[in-house]
Amino acid sequence: MKLTILGCHSATPRINTNPTAQVLDIKNHVFLIDCGEGTQVQLRKNKVKFNRVKHIFISHLHGDHYFGLVGLISTFRLLTREADLHVYGPKGLKEVITLQMKLADSWTNYNLFFHELTSKEPEVIYEDDAVEVSTIPLDHRIYTNGFLFKEKPGERTLRLGAALDANIDKAYFRKLKQGSDVINNDGVLIKNTEVTLPPPKPKSYAFCSDTAYNEAIVPIIKEVSVLYHESTFLEQHEKLAKPTKHSTAKQAAAIAKKAEVGTLVLGHYSTRYDNLEAFKKEAQTVFSGDIKLAKEGEVFYFD
Amino acid sequence: MKLTILGCHSATPRINTNPTAQVLDIKNHVFLIDCGEGTQVQLRKNKVKFNRVKHIFISHLHGDHYFGLVGLISTFRLLTREADLHVYGPKGLKEVITLQMKLADSWTNYNLFFHELTSKEPEVIYEDDAVEVSTIPLDHRIYTNGFLFKEKPGERTLRLGAALDANIDKAYFRKLKQGSDVINNDGVLIKNTEVTLPPPKPKSYAFCSDTAYNEAIVPIIKEVSVLYHESTFLEQHEKLAKPTKHSTAKQAAAIAKKAEVGTLVLGHYSTRYDNLEAFKKEAQTVFSGDIKLAKEGEVFYFD
Repeated sequence: MKLTILGCHSATPRINTNPTAQVLDIKNHVFLIDCGEGTQVQLRKNKVKFNRVKHIFISHLHGDHYFGLVGLISTFRLLTREADLHVYGPKGLKEVITLQMKLADSWTNYNLFFHELTSKEPEVIYEDDAVEVSTIPLDHRIYTNGFLFKEKPGERTLRLGAALDANIDKAYFRKLKQGSDVINNDGVLIKNTEVTLPPPKPKSYAFCSDTAYNEAIVPIIKEVSVLYHESTFLEQHEKLAKPTKHSTAKQAAAIAKKAEVGTLVLGHYSTRYDNLEAFKKEAQTVFSGDIKLAKEGEVFYFD
Repeated sequence: MKLTILGCHSATPRINTNPTAQVLDIKNHVFLIDCGEGTQVQLRKNKVKFNRVKHIFISHLHGDHYFGLVGLISTFRLLTREADLHVYGPKGLKEVITLQMKLADSWTNYNLFFHELTSKEPEVIYEDDAVEVSTIPLDHRIYTNGFLFKEKPGERTLRLGAALDANIDKAYFRKLKQGSDVINNDGVLIKNTEVTLPPPKPKSYAFCSDTAYNEAIVPIIKEVSVLYHESTFLEQHEKLAKPTKHSTAKQAAAIAKKAEVGTLVLGHYSTRYDNLEAFKKEAQTVFSGDIKLAKEGEVFYFD
């Protein structure tokens, strides 16, 4: 699982900071999460192949999370994209994008599917053999969802030598990986666990931006491998966090602790701060696990 | 008169090229012309003070000319702007911007005025004591206007020594600058032209993007000081220019020649070209006046 930070600052794009956008590589998918202004240039800078992006998830309709979407959709058209594109986001997103297409008299030459979200309960919005994506209802000024990306358990690992020693025909190897017990060439039942190892633990990634401190998400994100939780402010500005429904680094860390996550990634920093290390230090006072600071262009590998 | 090129490429923003946006400083105004994605960052890079931008002119509703507008309007709000903002552009622009504000539940804390354009004839859309702005109907795939910015003639220049020698009371100097003849302290009529010089020739700037080759604009832009005319293609790709309703460098030069402009600025290059000098060379085969190539970050002074 690989996470590329395209933008991790709040509010306005500036010369060296970008609004929210991330790319999650998971099980051969390239998921784009949020798409602030300038995201298409950030994709180019970070050498993400446009054609590999087939699913875009938009948390909410504040501009710093989606103003780059319409341009990206247009660019895909200009580059004569053929692959389908699926966009998941709050109701209203389809209207705003299609209005702009209509005014430009420019329609996509690829299939563009909108999956508009309205539920206030967690729901599965994408699923295939390898991954499942569901929403994490967040507490922000407008309707907002985080997203939970979960690998499905993979196949068991065959211990090849043990299987051959047990005189099992190769034709059964597939069944073994899938967890079945099998009969060997001597007609003896071989227990699956004797010749296989458990599959690697499935990875999971929870993206939570933007949100006030909200313990209701804890059961949803319980024990995820990686949690990205917004930390717009430091504790000294908690008074600003409350009315704007954002979180402090300390609050993000408290959620990480309660949810017992593996790694906490901080981001969505207010542009008032120059020193991002202060966010990490503050979070460390609460959460003793791994803490990383999102930075534009940073790539995190979670293996 | 000062022209700052924020973006001068067509179609899609890339790492080192930007879609159309320009700033025209004229008679103490800072006019923003078109506003492709990333314009607000380009404004920052070029140190244009946000608060000085009070009028934005949008030529047409293709994304590479206005996808940066909604973000700029939002950023003005976040920076607690107080100054009025006037936006001039095709009908539909107000709907698309206000829809996005509604979805974000984020309304401007400054006065935002839309001046929607529908006329297919040239019309004056802004005027004050110092400048006049009118539309230049262009021939593109959707409704498109260029814009003509004209300084109004200034006051005559007083030849101070001559006026004093002519024994004119200082109280009359204002009248002299305005062009009147006056009576001197000896009761003698002094002709204005004896003690003043004509005002400097008013400058004018015509912005013409995007457009097919269109001689109908020649009388409108006749003898302008500076013409920006799109040159999306070189002549070798004229076959692409026609159906997309764009121009070649040679066609832009032909318009400049017919309109007898002072300076021709080329831009809106297709991103297929690496060598922009070819545009200049091609235009020089037709137009013998001053030719400049728009480039991101370039500032032209026209005095």
